[in-house]
Amino acid sequence: MISDLNDILSVTIRGMKRSAIRELLKFLGQPGLISFSGGFPAPQSFPVEELKGIIQEVMETEASNALQYGATEGDNLLRTMLVERYKSMGMELSLENLIITTASQQGLDLIAKMFINRGDPVIVGLPSYLGGLSAFNSYGANLIGVTQDEDGEDPNLIEDHLKSLKAQGKKPKFIYIIPDFQNPAGITMSEKRRLEIIALAHKYDVLIVEDSPYRELRFEGEHQRTMYELDNTGQVILLGTFSKIFCPGFRIGWVVGHPDILDKIVVAKQATDLCTPPFTQRIAARYMEKGFLTPKIKQIAEMYKEKRNVMLQAMEEFMPDSLTWTKPEGGLFLMVKGPESLDTSKLLLDCIKEANVAYVAGDSFFCNGKGQNTMRINFSYETLEKNREGVKRLAEFYKKHI
Amino acid sequence: MISDLNDILSVTIRGMKRSAIRELLKFLGQPGLISFSGGFPAPQSFPVEELKGIIQEVMETEASNALQYGATEGDNLLRTMLVERYKSMGMELSLENLIITTASQQGLDLIAKMFINRGDPVIVGLPSYLGGLSAFNSYGANLIGVTQDEDGEDPNLIEDHLKSLKAQGKKPKFIYIIPDFQNPAGITMSEKRRLEIIALAHKYDVLIVEDSPYRELRFEGEHQRTMYELDNTGQVILLGTFSKIFCPGFRIGWVVGHPDILDKIVVAKQATDLCTPPFTQRIAARYMEKGFLTPKIKQIAEMYKEKRNVMLQAMEEFMPDSLTWTKPEGGLFLMVKGPESLDTSKLLLDCIKEANVAYVAGDSFFCNGKGQNTMRINFSYETLEKNREGVKRLAEFYKKHI
Repeated sequence: MISDLNDILSVTIRGMKRSAIRELLKFLGQPGLISFSGGFPAPQSFPVEELKGIIQEVMETEASNALQYGATEGDNLLRTMLVERYKSMGMELSLENLIITTASQQGLDLIAKMFINRGDPVIVGLPSYLGGLSAFNSYGANLIGVTQDEDGEDPNLIEDHLKSLKAQGKKPKFIYIIPDFQNPAGITMSEKRRLEIIALAHKYDVLIVEDSPYRELRFEGEHQRTMYELDNTGQVILLGTFSKIFCPGFRIGWVVGHPDILDKIVVAKQATDLCTPPFTQRIAARYMEKGFLTPKIKQIAEMYKEKRNVMLQAMEEFMPDSLTWTKPEGGLFLMVKGPESLDTSKLLLDCIKEANVAYVAGDSFFCNGKGQNTMRINFSYETLEKNREGVKRLAEFYKKHI
Repeated sequence: MISDLNDILSVTIRGMKRSAIRELLKFLGQPGLISFSGGFPAPQSFPVEELKGIIQEVMETEASNALQYGATEGDNLLRTMLVERYKSMGMELSLENLIITTASQQGLDLIAKMFINRGDPVIVGLPSYLGGLSAFNSYGANLIGVTQDEDGEDPNLIEDHLKSLKAQGKKPKFIYIIPDFQNPAGITMSEKRRLEIIALAHKYDVLIVEDSPYRELRFEGEHQRTMYELDNTGQVILLGTFSKIFCPGFRIGWVVGHPDILDKIVVAKQATDLCTPPFTQRIAARYMEKGFLTPKIKQIAEMYKEKRNVMLQAMEEFMPDSLTWTKPEGGLFLMVKGPESLDTSKLLLDCIKEANVAYVAGDSFFCNGKGQNTMRINFSYETLEKNREGVKRLAEFYKKHI
C-alpha cells in the first residue's frame, strides 16, 4: 500500500462525510426497531404482480435491447411516456426537454458537476434535502441557507442574498427548491410564493433547480403547478424520480429542462455511467404504457395519507408540549421541533438503544450548522401500528430527556 | 432562460466533449451498416432463458428487497458471490475488499473524484480506453501518455515520467492500466511486465488502477494473474464489470481494493447515485449462485474467438499491405494501423456513407493528440458473415483512400 493515502486525496473527497442517513441504515436490522429514519417507500406499495407480467413480456419480446447498452439520454420509449404524462398534466414540453438519470440523486450530482466551481454560491433552504446538499458540497459549493416559514423559503431573504451577492459582483449558480412536501420539513409552497421566487430568478438572471420527488403524493388540498411550468422560459430545471411512486430499486429519475442545459448534462453523464440501466428503463416504460402508473400513485397516496393520519394523531396524543411538528399535505416526511436547548443528534443513539426508535437528527439538513433541536420523521415505511407505537416510544423517550 | 448559460458553466464541463463513440451510436440505425465501432457484446450472448427463471424467482421470493433502496456498498449476496469467485481463482480477498458500482464507468468516475485535483498528473497508455480518459479529464487530470510495445506500456518510459515528476516534487495520482486485451489495442501484458510496473509503483509510492473488463474472455494462451493479485499489498485498485461477460443493460461493475480506499469511494458514491440498482444486483447474484456465470463466460469466449478468427482471416485476405493490425488473444477489440499520413478520423464519415462500415477513429484514444493513422475495430457485435463482409468493404474503401 502507498504511504500517503490521506495526503493524495482530492480536495473534493476531503470535504465529504458519510451521509448520516445512509449510516443509520445499518441499524435497520436491529430487532424490533421502528425506523422513522430513511426515506423508504412502503414495500407494500411496490407493484410486484404487475411487474411480473411486464418483465416476462420484456424478456420474451425485447430482451436483446433491454440487456444491451443504451443511449445516454435514456430509453426513448420511457422518455416519450414521461413527456406525454407531463403534457397530460398541462405542461408544455417535448422529447428534447427530458433525459433519464440514474435516479434523481444522479441528476443532482450532474447539475452540480455542470455548474459548480469551488466556492460558487448556491442558495438552499434551511433545512433542505441532505442528498442535494451533499452533491453540491462535493463540488465545493458555498451553500447559502434561507430560512423557511410555513410557505417555504422566504423570498425577501432570498432577495437579500441575491442583492448582497450582486454587490460583490457575484450570483448564485442556482436556487435549490423542493416546493412540494419538502424534505425534510414537509412544507408545500403556494403558487404565489413560487411565482415570487421565479420573478426573483428572472430579475437576478439565476437558474432554479426544482427537486420534485413527492409532488404527486398529495393527500389533500390542490395540486400545485410545478415551478418549471409556471416559469416556462427554461430557467427552471425540474428533477423527477420513480423512487417514491413506483420503486427505488430500479434507480430511475429524470431531468426536465432547456435543451442547452440537458445537452451538457448528457456530456457529463457519458463520463459518469454511460447510461442508466436500459433493463429497468424498459420495464418502467412498459409499465407506464399499460397505464399502471397513475392508479398506482393514487393508491400510494391513499396508503400514506392513512399512515400520516395515524402518526399525527399519535403525536397529538403522546408528544410532550415542548415539541411541535409540521402537518404535511403529502409526501413522506414531517419535521419535529423542540426547545432551542434540545440536541436530537446527541440523543439519537440513546433513543435507538432505549426506545428502539430511529429518526434523522435535523442538523444534517441545515447547511448553517443549526437545527440541533429538530428531527425528520418518515411516516411512509412502517405499518400503521408501528407508526403509532413508534411515536409513543419516541414521545416517552423525549419526555424523559427534555 | 438566463442570459449567460455558457458563462456560468463549471470549469469541469467546459473541458468535456461528447464521446466520439457514443455519438457514433447514432449511426447504428442506418440500414445495412456494419458496425465495428461500439464495444457492444453480441446480443446472442445474453442469457435470456436463464434470466427468465431467475427473475421470476426473485419476484416471487424477495421482491420487497430487490425493489427497495439498498446499501451504497452493494448487495451483500452479490459481493459475496464475486469475492468467492475471485478466491476460487486464487486471489486473496474478503468482503471488505469489494464494492459494487453502476458499471465500471462509475468506478472510473469515483476513483477520479477521489484522487484528482485540477492539474494532477495521471499516467495512461498511448492509446487507452476513452471512457477512462474522459472520466479523468472531467476532473482536470493532466494525462501523461506512455507508448506501448507488443507487451503493453513500456516500464522504462513509465519510469522516465515518474523520475521527471519526482524531480519537480510531484507524483502521478495513479497509473491507469488495462493489462488484458487492452481497449483499444487488444494487447495483453505479460506477467513479467506486470511485475515490473508494480515494482515501479512501489519504488515511487504510486497507486495502479487496473481496469479489467475483458480478462476472462481469453481465446488462447494462459490466463495472466491480475496486477491486484501480483501486488497483494493494496496498491492496485482493480475494476471489474458484468458488461462484457453477462449483460451491459444491468449496469453492474465492482471495485476491488484496500478497505481504506473503498471507504472513500463509498462516501463519494453516496452523493452520486446512493446505490446501484438493487434489482439488477439481486438478479445477478442469483445468476452467479446458480453457477451460470462460469459456463456462460466460456461460451462467450468461444463465440468471440470464432468472430475474431473470421475477422483476422478476412483482414489477411482483403486488407491493403499498407495497413497492419494487432492479433488479440481475447477480448473484443483489435487495432488497425496505417501509414503516418493516414487520417482515419477525416475518412470515417465517408467510410460510413460509401462503404456502410463504421469503426472508431484511433485519435480519441491518444491523450497526446496522435493516433490519427489508427482505428479501433470491434469484432464481438456483428455476425461472422458481417465481420467478413465488413472487413472486405473497409479494405476496399481504404485501398481507394490511402
